[in-house]
Amino acid sequence: MGLIGGGPGAFIGPVHRIAATLDNEIELVAGAFSRAPEKSRQAGKAYGVAADRSYPSWMALIEQERVRPDGIDFLTIATPNDTHLPIARAALAAGIAVMSDKPPTATLAQSLELAKAVRDAERPYALSYAYSGYPLMRHARALIAAGGIGTVRKVVVEYLQGWLAAPIERAGNKQAEWRTDAGKSGVGGAIGDIGVHAFHLAEFVTGLPVGAINADLAAVVPGRALDDDCSVLLRFAGGARGVLLASQIAIGEANGLTLRVYGDKASIAWRQEMPNQLLLHHLSGRTEILTAGGAGLLPAATAVTRLPAGHPEGYLEAFANLYRDFGRRLRGKPAPDLPGIEEGIRSMRFIEQAVAASRDACGWVPLEPAREYA
Amino acid sequence: MGLIGGGPGAFIGPVHRIAATLDNEIELVAGAFSRAPEKSRQAGKAYGVAADRSYPSWMALIEQERVRPDGIDFLTIATPNDTHLPIARAALAAGIAVMSDKPPTATLAQSLELAKAVRDAERPYALSYAYSGYPLMRHARALIAAGGIGTVRKVVVEYLQGWLAAPIERAGNKQAEWRTDAGKSGVGGAIGDIGVHAFHLAEFVTGLPVGAINADLAAVVPGRALDDDCSVLLRFAGGARGVLLASQIAIGEANGLTLRVYGDKASIAWRQEMPNQLLLHHLSGRTEILTAGGAGLLPAATAVTRLPAGHPEGYLEAFANLYRDFGRRLRGKPAPDLPGIEEGIRSMRFIEQAVAASRDACGWVPLEPAREYA
Amino acid sequence: MGLIGGGPGAFIGPVHRIAATLDNEIELVAGAFSRAPEKSRQAGKAYGVAADRSYPSWMALIEQERVRPDGIDFLTIATPNDTHLPIARAALAAGIAVMSDKPPTATLAQSLELAKAVRDAERPYALSYAYSGYPLMRHARALIAAGGIGTVRKVVVEYLQGWLAAPIERAGNKQAEWRTDAGKSGVGGAIGDIGVHAFHLAEFVTGLPVGAINADLAAVVPGRALDDDCSVLLRFAGGARGVLLASQIAIGEANGLTLRVYGDKASIAWRQEMPNQLLLHHLSGRTEILTAGGAGLLPAATAVTRLPAGHPEGYLEAFANLYRDFGRRLRGKPAPDLPGIEEGIRSMRFIEQAVAASRDACGWVPLEPAREYA
Amino acid sequence: MGLIGGGPGAFIGPVHRIAATLDNEIELVAGAFSRAPEKSRQAGKAYGVAADRSYPSWMALIEQERVRPDGIDFLTIATPNDTHLPIARAALAAGIAVMSDKPPTATLAQSLELAKAVRDAERPYALSYAYSGYPLMRHARALIAAGGIGTVRKVVVEYLQGWLAAPIERAGNKQAEWRTDAGKSGVGGAIGDIGVHAFHLAEFVTGLPVGAINADLAAVVPGRALDDDCSVLLRFAGGARGVLLASQIAIGEANGLTLRVYGDKASIAWRQEMPNQLLLHHLSGRTEILTAGGAGLLPAATAVTRLPAGHPEGYLEAFANLYRDFGRRLRGKPAPDLPGIEEGIRSMRFIEQAVAASRDACGWVPLEPAREYA
Repeated sequence: MGLIGGGPGAFIGPVHRIAATLDNEIELVAGAFSRAPEKSRQAGKAYGVAADRSYPSWMALIEQERVRPDGIDFLTIATPNDTHLPIARAALAAGIAVMSDKPPTATLAQSLELAKAVRDAERPYALSYAYSGYPLMRHARALIAAGGIGTVRKVVVEYLQGWLAAPIERAGNKQAEWRTDAGKSGVGGAIGDIGVHAFHLAEFVTGLPVGAINADLAAVVPGRALDDDCSVLLRFAGGARGVLLASQIAIGEANGLTLRVYGDKASIAWRQEMPNQLLLHHLSGRTEILTAGGAGLLPAATAVTRLPAGHPEGYLEAFANLYRDFGRRLRGKPAPDLPGIEEGIRSMRFIEQAVAASRDACGWVPLEPAREYA
Repeated sequence: MGLIGGGPGAFIGPVHRIAATLDNEIELVAGAFSRAPEKSRQAGKAYGVAADRSYPSWMALIEQERVRPDGIDFLTIATPNDTHLPIARAALAAGIAVMSDKPPTATLAQSLELAKAVRDAERPYALSYAYSGYPLMRHARALIAAGGIGTVRKVVVEYLQGWLAAPIERAGNKQAEWRTDAGKSGVGGAIGDIGVHAFHLAEFVTGLPVGAINADLAAVVPGRALDDDCSVLLRFAGGARGVLLASQIAIGEANGLTLRVYGDKASIAWRQEMPNQLLLHHLSGRTEILTAGGAGLLPAATAVTRLPAGHPEGYLEAFANLYRDFGRRLRGKPAPDLPGIEEGIRSMRFIEQAVAASRDACGWVPLEPAREYA
Repeated sequence: MGLIGGGPGAFIGPVHRIAATLDNEIELVAGAFSRAPEKSRQAGKAYGVAADRSYPSWMALIEQERVRPDGIDFLTIATPNDTHLPIARAALAAGIAVMSDKPPTATLAQSLELAKAVRDAERPYALSYAYSGYPLMRHARALIAAGGIGTVRKVVVEYLQGWLAAPIERAGNKQAEWRTDAGKSGVGGAIGDIGVHAFHLAEFVTGLPVGAINADLAAVVPGRALDDDCSVLLRFAGGARGVLLASQIAIGEANGLTLRVYGDKASIAWRQEMPNQLLLHHLSGRTEILTAGGAGLLPAATAVTRLPAGHPEGYLEAFANLYRDFGRRLRGKPAPDLPGIEEGIRSMRFIEQAVAASRDACGWVPLEPAREYA
Repeated sequence: MGLIGGGPGAFIGPVHRIAATLDNEIELVAGAFSRAPEKSRQAGKAYGVAADRSYPSWMALIEQERVRPDGIDFLTIATPNDTHLPIARAALAAGIAVMSDKPPTATLAQSLELAKAVRDAERPYALSYAYSGYPLMRHARALIAAGGIGTVRKVVVEYLQGWLAAPIERAGNKQAEWRTDAGKSGVGGAIGDIGVHAFHLAEFVTGLPVGAINADLAAVVPGRALDDDCSVLLRFAGGARGVLLASQIAIGEANGLTLRVYGDKASIAWRQEMPNQLLLHHLSGRTEILTAGGAGLLPAATAVTRLPAGHPEGYLEAFANLYRDFGRRLRGKPAPDLPGIEEGIRSMRFIEQAVAASRDACGWVPLEPAREYA
């Protein structure tokens, strides 16, 4: 494994490192951790990476790793969105598989271009929609696929945060700066930063693509160019309805990703901040609490659970489950739960359509041409 | 107090009786409890009402009570919606005040007509939006009015039930029959039955009128004529945004009324099924749990709390708080929290606009002419 | 119904009034509400009691009501503990049934004396252990009696409050004054004020009498003569073990009565502050949430539930269920869930044994002679 | 790092591996993973350990690693209790530091012997009481040490599990077999397996040693020799009282470790299964929810938090915090939160005294001579 990004002060790079190596199947052996060569070298040292494999740039990494006999199998991209396409394209062209932090690229057009590169390279490409790695989300997806809640009728998915409730981007907060800067984030603010997680999770768990949306996005904090609060009505293929909320001005919400899916036989409810518990409500009126590691779970969940019930697993373990899947795919085995470029394209289209539709206040818009989920 | 309705098998009539008399300030002394005179007399006996004041019809009740020296001060209407207007109009014309079960009438046009009758009669008229009677909803309203959460930015209100997830109206369930029958319920299904509670509560707590809506209503269960699942985007006067969910096909939800209001200084979250607890999140990141009867509550809440903290009060006590307010109004004192005909008109307009807008898929529609909340 | 106590500033008297009349089967028609005749008259007026039945003393009340043709059927005693015996004895001797606030008397010896009076009078006598009136506690009792959790092995019951964490009895708090005054409260502090509720509930739900205890009582707040914090190990008939915690110095606890019962087939968990929910855990690992008014409840619970699921009932409704039972008993019908003098004697013995055993640090002591639960 | 244990089918060995390497500061380079040399080699391969450092026995490991220039710095012991003493003693004698899975040894006498070895070796020795690694437990400890809840008055600590509710040790469950076998587990059953975690956590967080206990241990499941259910009253130095519950027959409990500490100014409540939330109740009646990664936490907590608020960390991360501390100690820095042999001795004394006192039903017994915590 090579890592692009993850230098001093980074958040998601170290998360990828922990997640990738948690199960002892992957080793971090190379990286370009910072654009500053000296910083990259130092970061590499802290990561335990050999000096000669702590590269000054991602180009240097790809160039040299491709020819080393012990060169990396795959590259993790944990850099700003606008760099995703060039890095991923170069890696794939060099025969190196890619695990990319979400979103796939800065724009939909770039994602479509990347999709072509993935197709041509015939190397694995994965996208870290980490919340889909929680055991109980895997259970929910398998349960619904098996008809366990009947026909899906209604989906309510929320991803609420409050940390951008004040204009901290004007007070020196780096994380806030780029997220509220259209030049760096693309056309979407909260919709692109967290809305796509909610969007992916809803499709992942229900197995149903969203076919149309009706969006209301707002830049609530004065002076912001990008949305920081989003409400989106959804229409799924097959007729189920839904609501997606994403906000970063919801004071009191830390990382409030929740999912409720109502079928005609049963329903499920889940909350990321208490990820090891899933409520299962039956039409009969009986309600069950399912617990990660506990009774009544499907193999899709138990396969990604490391600890007995009552020993909480969290975000890092969920994230590591994507790497576990990715490892399987690298070894040529199926990993049907792993998000890839197709999910990436859907995300980008969702962002762009939501932004446009909300701006034009045009009510319902189709999410995509029918061919994409034929 | 006189009661119209509340005969054998009724649900909301007995609730009104308990709520009205809980504080020992109101006595049930007359009623027309059923259209069948004999049943009315028997019900009256069970209620402890004198035989000569158990009337065979509401017309008889009004006619005789208006001339008795000890005639009733007010009448509670707990009959189907289509009877609300004639009863209320006749009572008011007879100088008898009215407490009406919601909604005020079967149609918006009727409510406007009723408003005229209320104005002419100069007698109190109240509407039992009982959920606004919970102490912590009173606290939330007062807190927000006092600027306690700053400017309201986002409102999420839900009222979810699951009892109509199957077509039980075709299996003999009486409560389901009339609710799914446009002839009896009017144009709204879930939106009219429970959506209006959510709508009222959102306006009540925030003090902000909704100015525009974007609605998606569906009759999910095959064969239904009226909506049983609703998602509505809201725009409040002043610019706050909101989402209102109302559904009766949400398996596992019993009476899932929840309210979250996000301001620019703080936010609140409340859940009717655990009504004695309110979460208060501050911009600073601190979170408090407020408890009915506990520390930190405003007079608006303590004034309607009967028991010390930890002794749960519930739905009946909340309902009784409306009667307490109503009693104040009857005595000529202010009762600013008590819903009246104005709130009723707003509800009816909400129902009719939501149904029409959803049917026409026309995106945002204004909720009402500006004059109504000038 | 006549009421002794409940004058200005009283807490439990008004609770009895609401609870008794909630179901419209009982009417408050007489009372001696205060030792001050004028206050009693005024309180009577506020209660809607006729002037000639607002008596200046409980003796006057009993004397006159016993000879009125429309005299009361029963008397509710809501006065300090040391007055319970004389009032109850006099009422019973006059053929008037008694509903007494707990505890039955000030001492065990008095309770044994009262038991004789009850036996002799052949009139109903009931004790308001109100928490046993919650529908889900009735369900739990019936479930366990039916073998629904198998053989009971372990019981954990807690009743925690924090309001006496500071010496507020020295700052003018009346409720605190008498509770911390051995002259008024008897030998028990927290153990007698709230510990007996926990004790009763544990026996009520399991159907098992406690046979031995091992108690650690403390007067934690400096200067207190009576216990304000209690931990008691329990041994039930049949061998089940248990732990009872009662404290009034547990800051943050409002009215934290909780009960957990573990059998060899299943277990239950309940919390008074969220009284409409019961967790049911099966040996298989499946966990269910049962809801008052919802699916899966036994007739013992549904019989005392007034509202559909999701419409919270609380403390007053639970309390009212004891009056409903009491009404049945007055009409000569069975009311097997209603606590009476036998439960009262057990409570008093528990208090006295716990205090003595803790003081002597003598480890396990038998709770009572075997004959009492032969 | 070298690992003894952790071969095929092991639970806690792999946990140590993940926890130790999570922060990328420790590498697993040697091990004796199984008593079967071939299994040890295969396990080593799976762990990524070089073939020549996958030893056939712990003796071979110590012998060879002590003389390698790149020999291990420390050894993790994850084998049955009765092997702890010889392994730890040999490692320490060889100048190799030790991280031992709890409990330190099989008996108190062995622990005292081990203490001498630790003293003589002058090498770090640590004990994996992993629950003390949770950020909010670190916060609670620091808060209490700083007087944040005032003087501690009452402690309630529970560790409840239900997996031994049926005699699964007679149905082939290996984990159950040795835990219920006095030959392998020592004199304590549940008290030694999980009770010691609760005991350590209570002392760790309060900073107060337990001075006396009053225990009731039972072998509830017929045929068991060792306790599977324990209730213990505690008396802390300084006078605080407490209750410790430990049970493995509590159906429905997965890993129910909870801690409540009541002071005279505030109290805290925590639940291991929702480890990222701590309730803080103030004497004033205000209640706060503290969240890992969120506002209001002390450096002791933030120092061991890897992720922003709302991204759950769990058991593995808590466990890894002990390794982080251990790494500090290896580097000669202070690690005051890390449990060592002193805590181990206290645990063993607790087990042996609880078992003896319960068997003799002798009420209160001192936990230890005063010198141990002078």
